Amino acid sequence: MPELILDISMSLDGFVAGPGADLDNPLGHGGPALHEWVIPTRAWREPHGLEGGEEGPDSELVEALIGQAAATIMGRRMFSGGSGPWEDDPNADGWWGNDPPFDHPVFVLTNHAREPEVKSGTTFNFVTDGIASALAQARAAAGDKDIRLAGGADVAQQYVKAGLLDAMQLHLVPLLLGDGVRLFAGHTGPVGGLELTRVIESPTGVVHLGYRAAR
Amino acid sequence: MPELILDISMSLDGFVAGPGADLDNPLGHGGPALHEWVIPTRAWREPHGLEGGEEGPDSELVEALIGQAAATIMGRRMFSGGSGPWEDDPNADGWWGNDPPFDHPVFVLTNHAREPEVKSGTTFNFVTDGIASALAQARAAAGDKDIRLAGGADVAQQYVKAGLLDAMQLHLVPLLLGDGVRLFAGHTGPVGGLELTRVIESPTGVVHLGYRAAR
Repeated sequence: MPELILDISMSLDGFVAGPGADLDNPLGHGGPALHEWVIPTRAWREPHGLEGGEEGPDSELVEALIGQAAATIMGRRMFSGGSGPWEDDPNADGWWGNDPPFDHPVFVLTNHAREPEVKSGTTFNFVTDGIASALAQARAAAGDKDIRLAGGADVAQQYVKAGLLDAMQLHLVPLLLGDGVRLFAGHTGPVGGLELTRVIESPTGVVHLGYRAAR
Repeated sequence: MPELILDISMSLDGFVAGPGADLDNPLGHGGPALHEWVIPTRAWREPHGLEGGEEGPDSELVEALIGQAAATIMGRRMFSGGSGPWEDDPNADGWWGNDPPFDHPVFVLTNHAREPEVKSGTTFNFVTDGIASALAQARAAAGDKDIRLAGGADVAQQYVKAGLLDAMQLHLVPLLLGDGVRLFAGHTGPVGGLELTRVIESPTGVVHLGYRAAR
């Protein structure tokens, strides 16, 4: 059965985006630094149409995560590129261009019904009836492989609180952002334990932490 | 020169104590689970006068951390045992008994001047003129060894914000507490990067993360 895996970069103080996100800086003040580790990797560059890139533990991990997923779930802002004026336009194009890096079905959580959009090997499906429905559709699409929950933070929080995540792959970045959007926020009490499944230390200082929900 | 090292257990969602701390539960709801990894270790039990205990990476790490420190800084609540009615009594005894596990000078941050208290090999010194003064006194006492910042969270936060920490040894516990006292809170913007110095994975699911302040 396909598993729902949250795959996200987080600062040591728990933020997945910096404060003050706007059109010029959709990841917020300091937020882009959370993703600096992934951009030089060969495994990230390749599906983004970029040549070259570094091999190593970061690239190997990215390759494995990409390889094991056959469907992706994301929020509306991750589809359309951060917050900004286009948020008011439910039919605005995504920022993923004509050859998105997914090459599998993507399920975008939104409040606005919209026809699916096919871009090269990727189909964006717009889901208006909630996170459980998006998960059911993604499971049907994923076959034997897994489902990647790509974010953003609010969507990740919803799945965490609903107990729907099977696993998390956190990329713990050695930064203190001080403010911004927390991955874990708004719980009202203990939500239980996690099983540590994997620790990968990277020369970039990022620690890749794999967890599985204790059921 | 002795280094100031914060040594603290933190949940994956960033809490170093649970919510609702009181006399019966000074670590807050769910908080004791943060320390479950350390109590069975031989290296922790020995200075606490307890026999037996487990060997392994957790115990080795605890032994090394104890061995490298020649002075400890802690807050008033950690000295007196959590929050509670005794907080109003500036001369209340600590909860460390007649043979505290430190066997070196301990500097307790407090608002109430008080004579030093000698308990077996440990001297508790009460510092009323702030965190920089406590650090200077601890440095003078530590000689060539390091200084352990034991917590609690508010004291740790003060040292983080003042940029006085040289290093951190975080014990990342695979729990989501949901609420409580955050280690990193109240910053108003990026406070910069950290250098990852060490990652130790424990069979208990705890990941021991060593960081050094990037200067």
